[in-house]
Amino acid sequence: MRKLIGKASKKAGLAPGALVFVGEQRHEEPKISIMDYDADHVDEREETDVDECLAFRDTPTVTWINVSGIHDVSTVEKLGTCYGVHPLVLEDILNTKQRPKLEEFEGYLFIALKMLSLDRESPELIADHISLIVGPNFVISFEETEDDVFEVVRQRIRNGRGRVRAAGSDYLAYALVDAVVDNYFVVLEQLAERIEEVEEELVSNPSTETMQTIYSLKRELIFLRRSVWPLREAIAGLGRIDSPIVSKETQPYLRDVYDHTIQIIDTIESFRDVVSGMHDTYLSSLSNRMNEVMKVLTIIATIFIPLTFLAGIYGMNFRHMPELAWGWAYPGGIWAVMAAVTVGMLLYFRRKQWL
Amino acid sequence: MRKLIGKASKKAGLAPGALVFVGEQRHEEPKISIMDYDADHVDEREETDVDECLAFRDTPTVTWINVSGIHDVSTVEKLGTCYGVHPLVLEDILNTKQRPKLEEFEGYLFIALKMLSLDRESPELIADHISLIVGPNFVISFEETEDDVFEVVRQRIRNGRGRVRAAGSDYLAYALVDAVVDNYFVVLEQLAERIEEVEEELVSNPSTETMQTIYSLKRELIFLRRSVWPLREAIAGLGRIDSPIVSKETQPYLRDVYDHTIQIIDTIESFRDVVSGMHDTYLSSLSNRMNEVMKVLTIIATIFIPLTFLAGIYGMNFRHMPELAWGWAYPGGIWAVMAAVTVGMLLYFRRKQWL
Amino acid sequence: MRKLIGKASKKAGLAPGALVFVGEQRHEEPKISIMDYDADHVDEREETDVDECLAFRDTPTVTWINVSGIHDVSTVEKLGTCYGVHPLVLEDILNTKQRPKLEEFEGYLFIALKMLSLDRESPELIADHISLIVGPNFVISFEETEDDVFEVVRQRIRNGRGRVRAAGSDYLAYALVDAVVDNYFVVLEQLAERIEEVEEELVSNPSTETMQTIYSLKRELIFLRRSVWPLREAIAGLGRIDSPIVSKETQPYLRDVYDHTIQIIDTIESFRDVVSGMHDTYLSSLSNRMNEVMKVLTIIATIFIPLTFLAGIYGMNFRHMPELAWGWAYPGGIWAVMAAVTVGMLLYFRRKQWL
Amino acid sequence: MRKLIGKASKKAGLAPGALVFVGEQRHEEPKISIMDYDADHVDEREETDVDECLAFRDTPTVTWINVSGIHDVSTVEKLGTCYGVHPLVLEDILNTKQRPKLEEFEGYLFIALKMLSLDRESPELIADHISLIVGPNFVISFEETEDDVFEVVRQRIRNGRGRVRAAGSDYLAYALVDAVVDNYFVVLEQLAERIEEVEEELVSNPSTETMQTIYSLKRELIFLRRSVWPLREAIAGLGRIDSPIVSKETQPYLRDVYDHTIQIIDTIESFRDVVSGMHDTYLSSLSNRMNEVMKVLTIIATIFIPLTFLAGIYGMNFRHMPELAWGWAYPGGIWAVMAAVTVGMLLYFRRKQWL
Amino acid sequence: MRKLIGKASKKAGLAPGALVFVGEQRHEEPKISIMDYDADHVDEREETDVDECLAFRDTPTVTWINVSGIHDVSTVEKLGTCYGVHPLVLEDILNTKQRPKLEEFEGYLFIALKMLSLDRESPELIADHISLIVGPNFVISFEETEDDVFEVVRQRIRNGRGRVRAAGSDYLAYALVDAVVDNYFVVLEQLAERIEEVEEELVSNPSTETMQTIYSLKRELIFLRRSVWPLREAIAGLGRIDSPIVSKETQPYLRDVYDHTIQIIDTIESFRDVVSGMHDTYLSSLSNRMNEVMKVLTIIATIFIPLTFLAGIYGMNFRHMPELAWGWAYPGGIWAVMAAVTVGMLLYFRRKQWL
Repeated sequence: MRKLIGKASKKAGLAPGALVFVGEQRHEEPKISIMDYDADHVDEREETDVDECLAFRDTPTVTWINVSGIHDVSTVEKLGTCYGVHPLVLEDILNTKQRPKLEEFEGYLFIALKMLSLDRESPELIADHISLIVGPNFVISFEETEDDVFEVVRQRIRNGRGRVRAAGSDYLAYALVDAVVDNYFVVLEQLAERIEEVEEELVSNPSTETMQTIYSLKRELIFLRRSVWPLREAIAGLGRIDSPIVSKETQPYLRDVYDHTIQIIDTIESFRDVVSGMHDTYLSSLSNRMNEVMKVLTIIATIFIPLTFLAGIYGMNFRHMPELAWGWAYPGGIWAVMAAVTVGMLLYFRRKQWL
Repeated sequence: MRKLIGKASKKAGLAPGALVFVGEQRHEEPKISIMDYDADHVDEREETDVDECLAFRDTPTVTWINVSGIHDVSTVEKLGTCYGVHPLVLEDILNTKQRPKLEEFEGYLFIALKMLSLDRESPELIADHISLIVGPNFVISFEETEDDVFEVVRQRIRNGRGRVRAAGSDYLAYALVDAVVDNYFVVLEQLAERIEEVEEELVSNPSTETMQTIYSLKRELIFLRRSVWPLREAIAGLGRIDSPIVSKETQPYLRDVYDHTIQIIDTIESFRDVVSGMHDTYLSSLSNRMNEVMKVLTIIATIFIPLTFLAGIYGMNFRHMPELAWGWAYPGGIWAVMAAVTVGMLLYFRRKQWL
Repeated sequence: MRKLIGKASKKAGLAPGALVFVGEQRHEEPKISIMDYDADHVDEREETDVDECLAFRDTPTVTWINVSGIHDVSTVEKLGTCYGVHPLVLEDILNTKQRPKLEEFEGYLFIALKMLSLDRESPELIADHISLIVGPNFVISFEETEDDVFEVVRQRIRNGRGRVRAAGSDYLAYALVDAVVDNYFVVLEQLAERIEEVEEELVSNPSTETMQTIYSLKRELIFLRRSVWPLREAIAGLGRIDSPIVSKETQPYLRDVYDHTIQIIDTIESFRDVVSGMHDTYLSSLSNRMNEVMKVLTIIATIFIPLTFLAGIYGMNFRHMPELAWGWAYPGGIWAVMAAVTVGMLLYFRRKQWL
Repeated sequence: MRKLIGKASKKAGLAPGALVFVGEQRHEEPKISIMDYDADHVDEREETDVDECLAFRDTPTVTWINVSGIHDVSTVEKLGTCYGVHPLVLEDILNTKQRPKLEEFEGYLFIALKMLSLDRESPELIADHISLIVGPNFVISFEETEDDVFEVVRQRIRNGRGRVRAAGSDYLAYALVDAVVDNYFVVLEQLAERIEEVEEELVSNPSTETMQTIYSLKRELIFLRRSVWPLREAIAGLGRIDSPIVSKETQPYLRDVYDHTIQIIDTIESFRDVVSGMHDTYLSSLSNRMNEVMKVLTIIATIFIPLTFLAGIYGMNFRHMPELAWGWAYPGGIWAVMAAVTVGMLLYFRRKQWL
Repeated sequence: MRKLIGKASKKAGLAPGALVFVGEQRHEEPKISIMDYDADHVDEREETDVDECLAFRDTPTVTWINVSGIHDVSTVEKLGTCYGVHPLVLEDILNTKQRPKLEEFEGYLFIALKMLSLDRESPELIADHISLIVGPNFVISFEETEDDVFEVVRQRIRNGRGRVRAAGSDYLAYALVDAVVDNYFVVLEQLAERIEEVEEELVSNPSTETMQTIYSLKRELIFLRRSVWPLREAIAGLGRIDSPIVSKETQPYLRDVYDHTIQIIDTIESFRDVVSGMHDTYLSSLSNRMNEVMKVLTIIATIFIPLTFLAGIYGMNFRHMPELAWGWAYPGGIWAVMAAVTVGMLLYFRRKQWL
């Protein structure tokens, strides 16, 4: 439940712009990796000292500074002040519960994203809060943990594959957003797999656990939806923005990634419909089973109740019961009557289509 | 489930514009058919060599190049580069999970569509991904498999029937889109037939399979809806577009096909409502049956339980039971009491309207 | 189901504008009635020959040509060509499944409508497809069968009552649309009557047929809704249109009929809500009944089961059962114990509020 | 049901603007009361002759003519013609099923409203159709019956309290609308009271009548909603209108009453949510009860069925049943076995948490 | 229920702008606290006499007047007249049921808010109605009771921390709104906690109380939603407003608090989805339990019913029952038959997967 809330209550009452890390506390040292490149060269290094980053601020080359581990508030703050980032933006970078958004400031854009992955055992989604500061010649990305989703972009820069080396910081920002969005399809496929498993279970052997799983799936879809809807708005905003940072050449790429978010949203909505339908199916399969059980009970009971009554009749101790003395009464008569009753019942049930 | 996802996860991490076929892999050779025509002549041929296509690029006649079999990436790529198509568009052509859309580029329009057909046995929809590149004097169409839905257009061109020969590439594009959209009505009629079958089953003899079929129908309608909604937007966009490619004379035709998509969407929504209602009917017919079964059980049980109790009473072995010795007790008294109890019960049930 | 689909599949593949009648085939001769009038005179006649109609094309008086029986394609076609109607419009006139719409063409407006009536026995709606071509000095109306809904307008023209004689063709078109829309209120009242009948049934004696009727009502409301929603748009468009055909004086009348369609839509939505609620009521009345049946079963069973057990105990044949010999055991003791058990049970049930 | 339909079917076919009273026919004489005032004086009188009203038409003072009893068509018609009201407006004034709306005409505004009150015994809403004609120096109000909701405004004019005497006809119209809207809060409080009663009933003792009441509440909320939604639009339109009749000083007051309608709509939506939830609660409380009943039946039956079987065993008449002769068998052995079976069962049920 | 209605019925009929306190009547003296500050100094005092407040009206410093206890109408009225506040605004300040809103007047802005807190025992939300009057150099805040949510802002002013001392009255207003909005996150966390508790209960031991709690949660979420949706609009309006009171520097802060309200709304919607899902889970867990109970009943009953019948057979007193005399019949034959029947039944049940 708590991951659905957008801001930690512990922040209530603090001055706006007060820098506090909100999220799961970690203890690793934050890692800063820097890539500085243009069409001709790439300069890559890993730093722990923030001050090194400042050197790249005014170079004409594109600089990508990636910070893994935003629980270290001072690193974020130093970097922020150096690059002239608004305190409210720094607050959002540190708040892992911040919803995806795009904001335009004088001289830079701020993009917040969620990087999702699916826990292997339970169908629970894990979110990594990612923030991008996009300036005219730099991109600063912040992530909670070191994830390899940006590695594909790093590879492309190293190899000079694709447009990335020739293009500016806006294309780099696009490439990073695209890497995150692409990863959503992986998550969706994993979810589809689980939904299919549950569907099979539903047909073959529905149990209380099936119900629990459906319920969890519903909740994860609620969470997924909440991560993607605002992302869509943010990316749409990026496409519409009238900023010197976003060049005209990058527009088709932004449209492409926007198209992908629409696909993701469509898929999520379809999944929600499907999972809703599964719940209905579960309920009617329960009703069905109950019906079948009831039918068997009814048939057995209604057949034997009159028979047992007949047996009871001739178990009475009345002194004058002429039938008891009839010679053909027991192995003949009474069994014949009982057989007739049974056959009559069975025919009645068949006519009612209960058999 | 998987067909609901818009992009294959295997593409995650690739550079944007990287050309990979996403879909069911086939092994047939791709087939390229070319039609080059104006009001006076038609030139039709089949090629396997892409280079032949280039000859038609700069002629004033309208050229229609149809590629069946997009699993052959190199064919698509060559054709794309020759006609100056953006790599992102080529990526979308190769991605069979791409949702319908319209995009305008310098010099051409890109339209993505879904061609649907219904599997004969199961109520499952099969989608064929279709892409159109519409330039001022050419249309290139791509399809997964060779389908005869475009054959009607080809016939009209050959015969010179209708406006198609006299009009430009925009009218040809319209004719192709219209052929695809018209086919949706065929699919809708087939679906309507199946829904009617299920409805009859629901009234006459609802079973667990009925429920399964309702559930599948729901899912196919979700899928159908997802294919048509974006199509509507794409066609609406086509009507509004301010491009030299779309002439004013084609506008009423585009409005007409737009009107058809609206009808399809209306029909799908109505089907969804109807299928939803069927599920409710199924549930209440289950409840009804259970009620009926319960009533029979109650009536039989409540009639015989007191009678059996009476028989039990006179089966007791107490030494002093004066009734046992009464002469008229057995064939007279006890049966009279039992008959009275039974009749009383039946009257009570009748008053309660359970009979 | 089929009437929910907007276009017949048999038309798939035909060239756009190909004239084919889509609907229930009839065999009557189409009937053409002509009214030509201005403030001072009325000229009324019935024709079967289309060519007669052409005479009125260029007169300054208002001409109303009404065609009953659109299954005769050639009549529609001749009339269409004579008055310069676009082939796509003729196609829509002949397609009885065409949804309501308004389209503006050079020199005339095209309005498609549904005339609804309720089948007397079943709660099924019957739709008659009506099309209007409105020119500066003529109105051509097409209907499937000869219906008397336009008779009221004809009467007003004959008598010179109301504004109709003094006003132009736009007012005549309005009067025809208004006659159709007014008739919807009649249908709504008939539906309301049926809904009320079902409601009473639901309270007094709900059965499986009640459920079937609720289900049919739902479907008819889906169909009704689909006929009126696009009509609303069409009439709104008529009010907004910037065409020399629609004069400023007719605007308040168009606003009035628009207001009526809004009322119809509101009523349909309310009916849908009410019918939905009826379904819920039906289900809970089923549950209620089952509960009551269960309670009676439980009470009778739980009272007699222990009593029968007691009778069984003293029906055992153990040699040493001292109670059997006690003098006051049978008519006194055992009955007293049984009465105590029964009273105890009844008190327990009363405390549980099951009685 | 019928009150949900916006127009009487008996009007179908009449010429637009034909004046027919639609509603419950009454027989009282219509009452006309006139108030003519400016900042300095008030002139109040009651008339039955319409012609008297005309005297005030051209005076600079504000004149308020209130007509109670619109079933008298001729009064409405005379007044209408005298003040130059469009026939379609008169038609709407006479149609008690007209939905709330605002229309602007040359020289006056037309406002239709619903005055609601709650029937004391049943939870049924009674609507009184109210119409206002607002001119530059006059307001004509029409109501079905004489209601005291306008009395508060009359008092304020008499006393010269508030702004009403100093302001123009627009403020008077606002004051009348505000009186009607304020009364909705009274209705909402009464409804809230009933909902609370049902809620308590639902917890303490849900019965079939509870269900019926929930169902009626749902329907009244549907009706209430339909009366208020268009009212909101009408009042919003009044705030936006660019008419010399509505002065700038009245704007904040119109915003205030608009704000109230929003509150009413919000409340109605919340009520709908709450009443919907009540239905669910009702159903699950039914299920719960059934469960409890089932449990008791199961426990009693499953305990006694084996015991009765045991008693049956020793009631058999086999010649060789050694147990029957054992000395300690009856009062000792068999009871011990039965007690053991019972305790075993009870422990099993406890473990299953059925007790 | 009543707290969902926006206006008290006792106000119906009063002149607009009539000042009446609507809410829970309290008896404490209202408390007025004043803070007057600029970048260099802070002057803080507590007054009970309203006249003291007027001294600050025309100073260039920012003045914050906070009134706790709006049940004292005269205080509010005096302050209002002194600062030129419109009577309708004063009415809204006194109406504790007023929904959140923003209104712009000549020379000041009016903001209405809800301060929420959660009752400790029951899951009921308590609302405190807060109003702000924001002028160019003053803010007047009104609250029902003295709450410490504004204390954090007071502290910041005293310490000169953050921007608040340097900025104008618009930033102060923002800080107050932000304090209220931040507190919503606290409420959401408390709600999340309760939802989690109920979820656990649902899995481990669902009871009627669980259902009641779900129902209450639903209602509180309805209430919460109604408090936040209009707040969002109000804050969005504040960001868009073109007033000299709101400076350009405050815009990013307003965007930030707007972003927070969006997060709150998203969270509420997710909670609603989750709580809805809980209701479904509850119902199916009920069904499940019933199923399990039914199964046990069926199995026990169907096993013993035939056995009891067999025992009944041999309890009959027919004179000629040869089996009774067979030597191996009792301890051997009959038990063997019974065992066979039992095993057969169990195998049947196992095959049906009921065991």
